[in-house]
Amino acid sequence: MTRTIVESKTRTAIIGFDQPFCVIGERINPTGRKILAAELERGDFSRVEADAIAQVAAGATVLDVNSGAVFTNKMAEDPRYADNNFVEPMLMKDLVEKVQAVVDVPLCIDSSVPGALENGLAAAEGRPLLNSVTGEEERLELVLPLVKKYNVPVVAISNDDTGISEDPDVRFAVAKKIVERAADFGIPAHDIVVDPLVMPIGAMATAGLQVFALVRRLREELGVNTTCGASNISFGLPNRHGINNAFLPMAMAAGMTSAIMNPVALPVTQKAIAEKKAEVLASGIILPEDIDDETFVTLFGMGSMKSRAGKEMEAIRAANFLTNNDPHGGEWIRFNKPALAAGGVEAGARGRREGRRRRA
Amino acid sequence: MTRTIVESKTRTAIIGFDQPFCVIGERINPTGRKILAAELERGDFSRVEADAIAQVAAGATVLDVNSGAVFTNKMAEDPRYADNNFVEPMLMKDLVEKVQAVVDVPLCIDSSVPGALENGLAAAEGRPLLNSVTGEEERLELVLPLVKKYNVPVVAISNDDTGISEDPDVRFAVAKKIVERAADFGIPAHDIVVDPLVMPIGAMATAGLQVFALVRRLREELGVNTTCGASNISFGLPNRHGINNAFLPMAMAAGMTSAIMNPVALPVTQKAIAEKKAEVLASGIILPEDIDDETFVTLFGMGSMKSRAGKEMEAIRAANFLTNNDPHGGEWIRFNKPALAAGGVEAGARGRREGRRRRA
Repeated sequence: MTRTIVESKTRTAIIGFDQPFCVIGERINPTGRKILAAELERGDFSRVEADAIAQVAAGATVLDVNSGAVFTNKMAEDPRYADNNFVEPMLMKDLVEKVQAVVDVPLCIDSSVPGALENGLAAAEGRPLLNSVTGEEERLELVLPLVKKYNVPVVAISNDDTGISEDPDVRFAVAKKIVERAADFGIPAHDIVVDPLVMPIGAMATAGLQVFALVRRLREELGVNTTCGASNISFGLPNRHGINNAFLPMAMAAGMTSAIMNPVALPVTQKAIAEKKAEVLASGIILPEDIDDETFVTLFGMGSMKSRAGKEMEAIRAANFLTNNDPHGGEWIRFNKPALAAGGVEAGARGRREGRRRRA
Repeated sequence: MTRTIVESKTRTAIIGFDQPFCVIGERINPTGRKILAAELERGDFSRVEADAIAQVAAGATVLDVNSGAVFTNKMAEDPRYADNNFVEPMLMKDLVEKVQAVVDVPLCIDSSVPGALENGLAAAEGRPLLNSVTGEEERLELVLPLVKKYNVPVVAISNDDTGISEDPDVRFAVAKKIVERAADFGIPAHDIVVDPLVMPIGAMATAGLQVFALVRRLREELGVNTTCGASNISFGLPNRHGINNAFLPMAMAAGMTSAIMNPVALPVTQKAIAEKKAEVLASGIILPEDIDDETFVTLFGMGSMKSRAGKEMEAIRAANFLTNNDPHGGEWIRFNKPALAAGGVEAGARGRREGRRRRA
């Protein structure tokens, strides 16, 4: 039974065939998040800390920490900042330290820059997951020695020097090559978590079937754990959550053991609140003048302003139960009783409080 | 590629490995529905007609018609009504005729009474599905000749004279026996839709894994289509929809091709409306005196008083797309655009109307 052990200073996350699905929170990543990148450039880590806390509260058991920021202002002052080999190693060290200060889950050190990987490995307490090696020769030669040196597990992405193949047999062959090359370094298969690469079904009709078949083969033939960037599957489509909510249980039924994803529900926007208020007032309803946003969105069924678990977490918890990785449904019942509606962070917390009160 | 053809007078539903999941609506069933049974006893078929229309609107492509009513008042007047062999054949004929008069989808004739099966087969136009044969000797000898005589496909339930086995290998063996016995009657495997029997995961922790493994074996070794009473899986648990919504895509990933289920969302109850109104008024909101229920539940995010598709249908549509049985996601996009929120009957209908208007 394959088990990949990931550790913080005080906590262990096990990725394994006989384990609840491992949710690796993806939010600590300045790539494509301009506001976050600008904050990090100013040395402001408050959003990183909030994202770390919210993701763990929503159910992430490992947090990905990606240092891929572009510091455009500093770049203008100091040309060294144009080089990610200069920026990312410093930033990774800071990110790891800030995150470790507020949450105690294991980390996943994520960068394309070798210096950032090494700095992250040095700064992380326990046994972090390294993200990532690929089948590219240069990357194999850079990353596998780090994996060996720090004795950590690693995410292996199924592309190589020829790029990402649309042929799943080629992606399987790349994964196999990485596992074999790792063995040459003395790295066991149970320390390799293969990402078979998820294509958007909007662009490739067989993308879902490819993942399910690949996960099954990777598990049966290579004995490795698997992960993926889950939300890729729904890229460009309407109601992406509806697709993600079905994809995750299906991938779990095929044997996928982890995903890099956002476990936190999208917050209600001010625009959505304003639109709803206009609709409400037009219907003749009179609102108290001092009604606050939280009361409004709760009463009008829009969710909550507080961060809460997304519906994907409900789908994953149900699939844990259905794959017999939630013994007696203890977790399912805890997160759904007595607040049947949500499966959310608050619902879970409220459920526990109310349960205690009733027993008292 | 196994295909089971089910037909009404004018429409064909195909159950098959390369087809969208076949949703067999389960609502027309007086078993355990006291109000419906009492209405049928008075000759009132209005609820049957409404259930037929609502289920088809929500996405059912076949409707199950079950005649299992107990007519307690008539029983007091006429002792023959104590015998289901007397009641069900008459009732089945009426049910089939009433349903066929309001919807044009194929039917699934469902009874434990042979006379009701025969009457249903005689009354149904086209090529209905027969529900069901089991591995019980008496049932095999009664039902298979009917299947042969009417040249219809049949649901085969994996229990036999020893009852329902908790061992999936025994359930597989029962299914195999039924397929072999059917072959003796000249009935091909593609006309047998096996129900591997879904146990509640609350009672049996491996129930989900058993179904996924059985569906795969039934498909690969016997080449048959499969179905199940989907909601059994969540019996007795909180947030049953959360479990069903994950179970259906997982079963589809394993190869299940149909389910007998309720495609319609539960209606909002008057009790829920009263509770919500109390909460709203306590918060200082003033409602217009003449606000109607539909406006209220819509504005306060409780759903709709109108019948609409349940979230299970969203999960099934997503899984159709993910198994490449929704070419180019046409159905997914149609049901989710521009009304991103719902995946419901109204949302779909509204989407189509608005789409037309915009193109005009």
